[in-house]
Amino acid sequence: MTNDDEMAFEMALIRRAAAVEVLLRRLLDDRPLSGEIARPDRLMAAMRHGVLNGGKRLRPFLVMESAALFSADGEAALRVAAALECVHCYSLIHDDLPAMDDDDLRRGQPTVHKAFDEATAILAGDALLTLAFDIVASEATVLPAERRAALVLALARAAGAGGMVGGQKLDLEAEQTPPDEAGIITLQAMKTGALIRFACEAGAIIAGAPAEDRERLAEFGSAIGLAFQLADDLLDLTADAGQMGKATGKDAAAGKGTLVALHGANWAHSQLHGLVGQAHALLDPYGDRAALLKEAATFVATRNS
Amino acid sequence: MTNDDEMAFEMALIRRAAAVEVLLRRLLDDRPLSGEIARPDRLMAAMRHGVLNGGKRLRPFLVMESAALFSADGEAALRVAAALECVHCYSLIHDDLPAMDDDDLRRGQPTVHKAFDEATAILAGDALLTLAFDIVASEATVLPAERRAALVLALARAAGAGGMVGGQKLDLEAEQTPPDEAGIITLQAMKTGALIRFACEAGAIIAGAPAEDRERLAEFGSAIGLAFQLADDLLDLTADAGQMGKATGKDAAAGKGTLVALHGANWAHSQLHGLVGQAHALLDPYGDRAALLKEAATFVATRNS
Repeated sequence: MTNDDEMAFEMALIRRAAAVEVLLRRLLDDRPLSGEIARPDRLMAAMRHGVLNGGKRLRPFLVMESAALFSADGEAALRVAAALECVHCYSLIHDDLPAMDDDDLRRGQPTVHKAFDEATAILAGDALLTLAFDIVASEATVLPAERRAALVLALARAAGAGGMVGGQKLDLEAEQTPPDEAGIITLQAMKTGALIRFACEAGAIIAGAPAEDRERLAEFGSAIGLAFQLADDLLDLTADAGQMGKATGKDAAAGKGTLVALHGANWAHSQLHGLVGQAHALLDPYGDRAALLKEAATFVATRNS
Repeated sequence: MTNDDEMAFEMALIRRAAAVEVLLRRLLDDRPLSGEIARPDRLMAAMRHGVLNGGKRLRPFLVMESAALFSADGEAALRVAAALECVHCYSLIHDDLPAMDDDDLRRGQPTVHKAFDEATAILAGDALLTLAFDIVASEATVLPAERRAALVLALARAAGAGGMVGGQKLDLEAEQTPPDEAGIITLQAMKTGALIRFACEAGAIIAGAPAEDRERLAEFGSAIGLAFQLADDLLDLTADAGQMGKATGKDAAAGKGTLVALHGANWAHSQLHGLVGQAHALLDPYGDRAALLKEAATFVATRNS
């Protein structure tokens, strides 16, 4: 990859994030939609606090770029991207709760239960998860109903007991009983991997691409999900809190095993190199059109915050 | 209504509940589904604890009977009914949390955060909500994708910030600032009304019935939702804890206004009578086929537990 590719990726990431931001702000408006009775303003404010927080919007980027790979409808991809970000942000709100990871800061700002209160944070998370399925299923997501239903199903599988939420449960258990290597891999594939895999797979579903493409994009998502987690574990070891905007070294302090702790930083760097190569190879059939997605894989593996 | 109608209703309620119970048990199995990585057993156990608790399954009954009114597919109705019960049970798990209503008992059993822990209860609720959308969107819910997507959307609207979750937020705020009569009506229409309304409307959606029928069933749902809440408020004033299987008199103790507190028991009984009449009239066009649904309206208004 050249420096130009890197810059093109960073520009595209910022552009996509801006579009998602506009849509999220609209979706989190105080005005009730058809079928809704009223939207309590403190609840909506808490939802906005948890979502409109200046995140990089990496998952939405992956949805939109994967969709663009198959020339899918951009408006539909944007809505699915926003829905996925709602799921990601709900999971952060609930993870930050005192009964869970008990974090006071997120991106340098008070977490939702600090800025509001615990009950409001629980409900804001619940409402964001619910809203995500609303967004995907709505006719405003201009896709055939078959694809909207398939997206709801894939998102629910990625986010539920057998995906992200299950991974969070395993992560909490890992504080009591450190898992073995296979256990760590399962935990991470669920906790962070499942949503990233969905992000990439979603593009193919939105486009109605053949099953082979859908599977290829899902595998790409799995590879960069693994890379994302390895990079995160490396950062947790080495970065200071200012760089991350949140407390660091917490995993080690909580006694949680990571693959980096098990095998060391050199091994992790070599793994990351391999995963990026694997991710790139999966996208080779799509030629130049996959340049930004390939650069996203490199970014995920080498990010320093 | 004769005594025979009442008995027919009670038998039907038990029969429907048994069918839902079997399906819920299967859906909450430990074995991961396609697209899932693993189902952590303590998480699944907590989900089962929160769902398989001997509830009357009134909302599932309403889904199935409304669907039967239009000769809809019974298997599809059963799955939507189970999904709705997952949403109802998730809301109870989260409502019972220490940061919310702080209840230790539910139907005479320890609440999920008591039987497990707070973090597990939060995650079990999250996973049940997610599972509900999984169930509805799945092709195993043998309906055209258009109807599955419409059901996902209607369920999300009923359960989200503009429905049940928003109502729970208003309910928490009512402890600080007692709402006026209009505020109480909005709160109750959201907190308990929205899901009951969805239950009745869902039957028409499952059957692909005309919009007019869908609206009529939704209105029926609204009427019995109001009746349900009035009966609940009356019970809260008069019943003892043994009868309800949970703490009673809590609303009054928390300073929450109810319409019964505002207008008295006699007014409430007269309102209930009117609501049952209104609910029955809405179903008159369906003749004898609506007998069980009509009896359900009577049951909701006159139940003593």
